Amino acid sequence: MHFETALPLQSGASIRGYDVAYETYGTLNAGKSNAVLICHALNASHHVAGVYAGQEKSEGWWDNMIGPGKPVDTNRFFVIGVNNLGSCFGSTGPMHKNPDSGEVYGADFPVVTVEDWVNAQARLLDALGIQTLAAVMGGSLGGMQALSWTLQYPERVKHAVVVASAPNLNAENIAFNEVARRAIATDPDFHGGHFYKHGVIPKRGLRIARMIGHITYLSDDVMNEKFGRRLQAPTLPAAHGALPPEGALAARGGSSSLRDGVDLKYSTQDVEFQIESYLRYQGDKFAEYFDANTYLLITRALDYFDPAKKFGGNLSAALAEATAKFLLVSFTTDWRFSPARSREIVRALLDNGRDVSYAEIDAPHGHDAFLLEDARYLRAVRSYFESIASSLEGSKA
Amino acid sequence: MHFETALPLQSGASIRGYDVAYETYGTLNAGKSNAVLICHALNASHHVAGVYAGQEKSEGWWDNMIGPGKPVDTNRFFVIGVNNLGSCFGSTGPMHKNPDSGEVYGADFPVVTVEDWVNAQARLLDALGIQTLAAVMGGSLGGMQALSWTLQYPERVKHAVVVASAPNLNAENIAFNEVARRAIATDPDFHGGHFYKHGVIPKRGLRIARMIGHITYLSDDVMNEKFGRRLQAPTLPAAHGALPPEGALAARGGSSSLRDGVDLKYSTQDVEFQIESYLRYQGDKFAEYFDANTYLLITRALDYFDPAKKFGGNLSAALAEATAKFLLVSFTTDWRFSPARSREIVRALLDNGRDVSYAEIDAPHGHDAFLLEDARYLRAVRSYFESIASSLEGSKA
Repeated sequence: MHFETALPLQSGASIRGYDVAYETYGTLNAGKSNAVLICHALNASHHVAGVYAGQEKSEGWWDNMIGPGKPVDTNRFFVIGVNNLGSCFGSTGPMHKNPDSGEVYGADFPVVTVEDWVNAQARLLDALGIQTLAAVMGGSLGGMQALSWTLQYPERVKHAVVVASAPNLNAENIAFNEVARRAIATDPDFHGGHFYKHGVIPKRGLRIARMIGHITYLSDDVMNEKFGRRLQAPTLPAAHGALPPEGALAARGGSSSLRDGVDLKYSTQDVEFQIESYLRYQGDKFAEYFDANTYLLITRALDYFDPAKKFGGNLSAALAEATAKFLLVSFTTDWRFSPARSREIVRALLDNGRDVSYAEIDAPHGHDAFLLEDARYLRAVRSYFESIASSLEGSKA
Repeated sequence: MHFETALPLQSGASIRGYDVAYETYGTLNAGKSNAVLICHALNASHHVAGVYAGQEKSEGWWDNMIGPGKPVDTNRFFVIGVNNLGSCFGSTGPMHKNPDSGEVYGADFPVVTVEDWVNAQARLLDALGIQTLAAVMGGSLGGMQALSWTLQYPERVKHAVVVASAPNLNAENIAFNEVARRAIATDPDFHGGHFYKHGVIPKRGLRIARMIGHITYLSDDVMNEKFGRRLQAPTLPAAHGALPPEGALAARGGSSSLRDGVDLKYSTQDVEFQIESYLRYQGDKFAEYFDANTYLLITRALDYFDPAKKFGGNLSAALAEATAKFLLVSFTTDWRFSPARSREIVRALLDNGRDVSYAEIDAPHGHDAFLLEDARYLRAVRSYFESIASSLEGSKA
């Protein structure tokens, strides 16, 4: 969808003549009351579910969650996946031309915030003729957008599903983002963000950024289980699977028997342990397809999000605006966005007498759990959406 | 101390014609029974205590622990601080000449392990005429050396004090080391480790490595308390103190009042939050004085240490060799080397009927706590060394 009119941004800048990529699934009902908006996290897109015809392995990043008969059932809901401004997967981003200058944006792409994304998403809904969302849903950074929807457009959101998220980043979260950004911005191939015109890509920095990210997506436990201290067998291919959206750990066969059969190389630069091979592989893949400026923009949007800020840090006061009903989900081993952060949101909503369901899932997979199969997690979401569907059908009858 | 004879290394290589830098404090008694060896961690040296004449701020890295009347009392003990091979603070390392080739070692400096360091330290003690250590003591990587002493030279160690350490690194620890190493080794100024002859230093990589390290040294809690989401005031100097040995958080005045007075810059490359400024500052300082090849070597030594490996992962079997008495100390908020890892050592020693004291200190400072003032921690060490001193004086009488 093309938008010619300028969108004012939180920074004071604006962006005009931009595209927003989106996909829809299912059918919008006559009352236009069954729309569900899915917001994505760091490394995902509008392609939330299904596969593209003729393209193997093109499953949407939340395909286990969204589709016919799935927890977010596209036989009942009209699901909209949207790609955010600044991304590198379809919507206008740093690699596109600035219509004002005719030059590729590069580092001049305006800094966009969670609030800006929500405003852009609201414009998309306007264009689609959808006034009210049955639900807005997202995990991690996507959960921040869902939460922000309930504050920016309270009257347009009936339900918000906020998974593995937080009311803001803590210092450690910002610290990891900053190291990743410095790795990119100090890569000599970054050229201050204008690398496109030099025909290079700051792959070294992107690799480091992705490796750091991966460590924070996984729990200590799952890393020890999947990799432990096992050495990389020199003759076998690296033991890792396909690259899932936000670094979800792919199911892989065990290789615990390698430990005793492999000798140390005594090298500081070669791969010695399987965890090293896994991280390098993930870094290499990421550097092939992700845009460096997008990485900076998206991590900055994470850093900036803090709805309580203008209320002096009082989250309860900040969430007083929200009128939606909520489902919050967190995962016990998620140390990036820990259950304690979700509980802050729950508490603040309860302080305002809001209707809140909260599921704290005892899952081993760390932050990545929000993208993975977990029967209790999927059941909680299914049950929540079934009750939304029932109430929609009730109001129709 | 110069050593001409080749030291065989675990890798099968050897090193000859090398120097080991060391300092001593206090007086060796007539029976040569009061020697205490201090082993250092990632970023420290033989200068463990005291100040150099005429040099302000030259306190040794464990000066709060070691000195006259301090927990490790140099009025009673003869303390030896030693710098490890491969370091950049005095002992022979990658920036020195290989006597065989006449060329600077660079990346050709042999990979050294905890076991190699202990062997080099034992040679130093031989040269000093010290057969038996009253105690060997270290924190973090230094604790691994202390533990390894009790296995490699059980008859030469009466007591081992192992602080904030682990029987090996877990996958997450290795992962952080690997990201740091990749940041250094992929810096174009690294030149495969032979950057000296190009007259450059891979500072970009060193900065990233140090920033990652710092995040893991601090606890989430202390980061939130010291920095939180506070913005960096553009007109004030960066709010950080001098650089302590392994990144100990310096005491700093609070600046919580900045939050409301500063606006966002909406920039992906400028410093926005105080935590960013702190990390950049630490990275910049480190890149000025630390050697890139040393960083690779020392993190690899950490990765490799695993005394249980040749016992099929059975730590109790591995520690059966040890005859020393032990003091183990861990810190509750240390997520780099968590208390659970210290407890593994305690359990394995108890399985062997060894004499073990264990203090788990409820400290807020994360891994860095082992370098900081904490009354209970210092008291536990003091009390342990007092009992060693008493038994020495008893045996003398």
